[in-house]
Amino acid sequence: MFESAELGHRIDKKTFRAEVPPLREALLDAQFDLHENGQFPVVILISGVDGAGKSETINVLYEWMDPRFLSTLAFSTPTDEERERPYMWRFWRALPPKGRIGIFAGSWYSTPIAERIRGDLSRGDLDQRMDQINRFEAMLVNEGALVLKFWFHLSRESQRQRLKSLEKDPRTAWRVTKESWARLKTYGKLQEAAGHVLRMTNTPWAPWIVVEGTDDRYRSLTVGKIVLDALQKRLADTRDQNFPVAPPIAQKIDSLDVLTALDLSLKLEKKDYETQLAKWQGRLSELVRRPEFRNHSLILAFEGSDAAGKGGSIRRVTAALDARQYQIVPVAAPTEEERAQPYLWRFWRHIPRNGRVAIFDRTWYGRVLVERVEGFCAEADWLRAYTEINDFEHELHEDGAIVVKFWLQISDKEQLRRFKEREKIAFKRFKITEEDWRNREKSPAYHAAVCDMVDRTSSGMAPWTLVEADDKCYARVKILRTVCERLEQVLDPDKTRNRKD
Amino acid sequence: MFESAELGHRIDKKTFRAEVPPLREALLDAQFDLHENGQFPVVILISGVDGAGKSETINVLYEWMDPRFLSTLAFSTPTDEERERPYMWRFWRALPPKGRIGIFAGSWYSTPIAERIRGDLSRGDLDQRMDQINRFEAMLVNEGALVLKFWFHLSRESQRQRLKSLEKDPRTAWRVTKESWARLKTYGKLQEAAGHVLRMTNTPWAPWIVVEGTDDRYRSLTVGKIVLDALQKRLADTRDQNFPVAPPIAQKIDSLDVLTALDLSLKLEKKDYETQLAKWQGRLSELVRRPEFRNHSLILAFEGSDAAGKGGSIRRVTAALDARQYQIVPVAAPTEEERAQPYLWRFWRHIPRNGRVAIFDRTWYGRVLVERVEGFCAEADWLRAYTEINDFEHELHEDGAIVVKFWLQISDKEQLRRFKEREKIAFKRFKITEEDWRNREKSPAYHAAVCDMVDRTSSGMAPWTLVEADDKCYARVKILRTVCERLEQVLDPDKTRNRKD
Repeated sequence: MFESAELGHRIDKKTFRAEVPPLREALLDAQFDLHENGQFPVVILISGVDGAGKSETINVLYEWMDPRFLSTLAFSTPTDEERERPYMWRFWRALPPKGRIGIFAGSWYSTPIAERIRGDLSRGDLDQRMDQINRFEAMLVNEGALVLKFWFHLSRESQRQRLKSLEKDPRTAWRVTKESWARLKTYGKLQEAAGHVLRMTNTPWAPWIVVEGTDDRYRSLTVGKIVLDALQKRLADTRDQNFPVAPPIAQKIDSLDVLTALDLSLKLEKKDYETQLAKWQGRLSELVRRPEFRNHSLILAFEGSDAAGKGGSIRRVTAALDARQYQIVPVAAPTEEERAQPYLWRFWRHIPRNGRVAIFDRTWYGRVLVERVEGFCAEADWLRAYTEINDFEHELHEDGAIVVKFWLQISDKEQLRRFKEREKIAFKRFKITEEDWRNREKSPAYHAAVCDMVDRTSSGMAPWTLVEADDKCYARVKILRTVCERLEQVLDPDKTRNRKD
Repeated sequence: MFESAELGHRIDKKTFRAEVPPLREALLDAQFDLHENGQFPVVILISGVDGAGKSETINVLYEWMDPRFLSTLAFSTPTDEERERPYMWRFWRALPPKGRIGIFAGSWYSTPIAERIRGDLSRGDLDQRMDQINRFEAMLVNEGALVLKFWFHLSRESQRQRLKSLEKDPRTAWRVTKESWARLKTYGKLQEAAGHVLRMTNTPWAPWIVVEGTDDRYRSLTVGKIVLDALQKRLADTRDQNFPVAPPIAQKIDSLDVLTALDLSLKLEKKDYETQLAKWQGRLSELVRRPEFRNHSLILAFEGSDAAGKGGSIRRVTAALDARQYQIVPVAAPTEEERAQPYLWRFWRHIPRNGRVAIFDRTWYGRVLVERVEGFCAEADWLRAYTEINDFEHELHEDGAIVVKFWLQISDKEQLRRFKEREKIAFKRFKITEEDWRNREKSPAYHAAVCDMVDRTSSGMAPWTLVEADDKCYARVKILRTVCERLEQVLDPDKTRNRKD
């Protein structure tokens, strides 16, 4: 992996002076185009061994480009807001929007590599992390991002010399710390771990660029040219980035599917309803106050046909919670800042801290429901979304989030009845719009989309609960009970196990 | 303050049942209007003594209104990201956007009241805090917000009874903690501190609404009706909210002002420039690495005429910094999410943590410069902005931020020369636009605006530095030197004092 970066590359002063001005001009031009017309963000990862010129390179990029549209994010110790959320949250919130360049000094690779060197991460776990990272980067690229991953390399001897010369110069001496020298001792371990990581994540969509770090001029010129080249190519690429890539969804042979299999006649009598409601609300309010819950968060995802009763169900859940503990996130059209980011970004920004609850009224599944049916995104986009969503939920789960997903299903007849009823009542917010009627006509397309969604994204850690919602009482109690049971499984594993016996 | 809230208000079940349905319907309608057409946010503060029904009231609001457009923010222990920024930062980031209702469970009042009760805050300091809060709320209201401040009151005896009955019910017992009982003991102190705070902040633009908390039905109905009434009135108020309120700016009698007084012929020879630049850059890079700087942050604000050299100056500053330590914030047109907030919000969101540097390329002064000159906001708005900006910077200063503000001034002749030069060169980003030429024609208006700005916002804690910028070398060194000196004043107060002796 590092062979070409130990050859002793050097650029003399004269060549450097001749090459830099046209390069800077071209970089500024390309950056200007990116800012004015570029419908994509640029993510630059700066990593490598200490002393190989990571911060020098960032400074060069700032000098050569327009610093107003660059941002640099350093990731040292996570803040408590970051620690209480999934590992990737801090990176998501640092992603540059379209038209801008984000430089990551340290990245999602830093912790796994450091943990591996310290021996805190097994080879198997490391590989799993790298697999997740590959999928994350694929998502970024599919969402339009240009991802450039630089690794600055030094041989052990060059590193020793670099550190010495940095230490000599009073202007740079501060950058050489005890840790720098300590890391020289673990040089071999770093090379081994990094080599493995780089090989595992050297994907066609986000390949590593290994640069020899010994000579400042060589390194700066190399990085500058690579950034320019990548920018220019991407700006000139007018192809539609969205082309169908995924296998077709299976055809239906009979009328039996996860939705038609539901028994929509299920009912709960008023009297039973009130008892059950009180019981499960009481249980829920007790569960979220458990000390163990402080190490978890609860994420409720509500999807369902129009008028299926999402709002009413959500209110029955929140009645059991302290308003200071939860947020309801109504999902409507994305804002301008959200549109400038990968589609999952606007959900990441609402991921709750530990000990808290987030309730999504419509969710990230919009991608494979409304966007698929209405053609708001390309086929390739919603097809890849299933995997991306699974990855997203997996990450939430790994961090201790309890993800509970509901699809509220009502019959065509019941929906019609509710629409008509709504037309009569006065609450403005219940007014039926043209769109609601139009959506009804598309119900076969939605039906197929829901079935695919359930098949492809119901996982052990984040299963779908399909809710028979023709009877509101039945639906509400089923939802509350499901939330409680999922919470108990996590907070009270022994009790749950015993109960099953 | 609390007399009317100790009268034993009660609402019987029958009245309550009759009144709630039409109230809910009207609330939902008003909330729908707010969401669809309301160009303002609603800020509801829920405060008062323990057991007086704060969280019950929030739950009632959630039950009666559409919870998707409500958000509740609780403010307990600040996170480290919050602790390392000014006190008000956590409230700014929680402000609801236009069209939404934000419920604050705890607010900017909580800490001052608690500190006063504990004896950590003198009466004088408390009054100063209340004055700041009044100005903050005035700003919110001037920016269009509807601010409703509720205080739930209980007599000492009622509080004891409420706590007892909460404790008896297993569903609410968890809410009564040791602290609740401890607070009963400090009841008198709370009444005294709160009474004083409420009187001081009972402003015409954001008056307190004191509600007796003993009877649930009375309390719920009162709050519901007040919220409805306030919403309806504000929605029906079609008057232009922006009317001129401030005194006129003084007329100029002669041609002498802070700008014409500048000696734009000041120069620095190339050779001196390089020595000086290296000297101050070295000093700056040393200063921001001082351990003492970790308790401060550095905020650089750059304003100046077009082509005055802001970009070049910023690059000379950043060359002395580690890219991981600073962010450049280029200020262009606000985004959709920013437009839905008070105009200072988009600057608050970029306020750096301690130990970090934020460089604003154009700033919050846009309000009193371009927005004033181009008529983008009403006269009343930019007139009140001077005070609001002073308050903003005062708050930054109080938290330890070092605010350094530069106005770069160039002569008309030099600007023309630079424009023509730019027209010749190839860098796209330096292309002169129609707008640049148009701005030149407005230069007298800008001139007046700059003079007013300096007069009204140059304070001891955040003075303006006017930079003679016809000579770029002179300007850059003056800027770097000023930044260093301001840093030294704070980080090295003794040394600075000695030097002056």
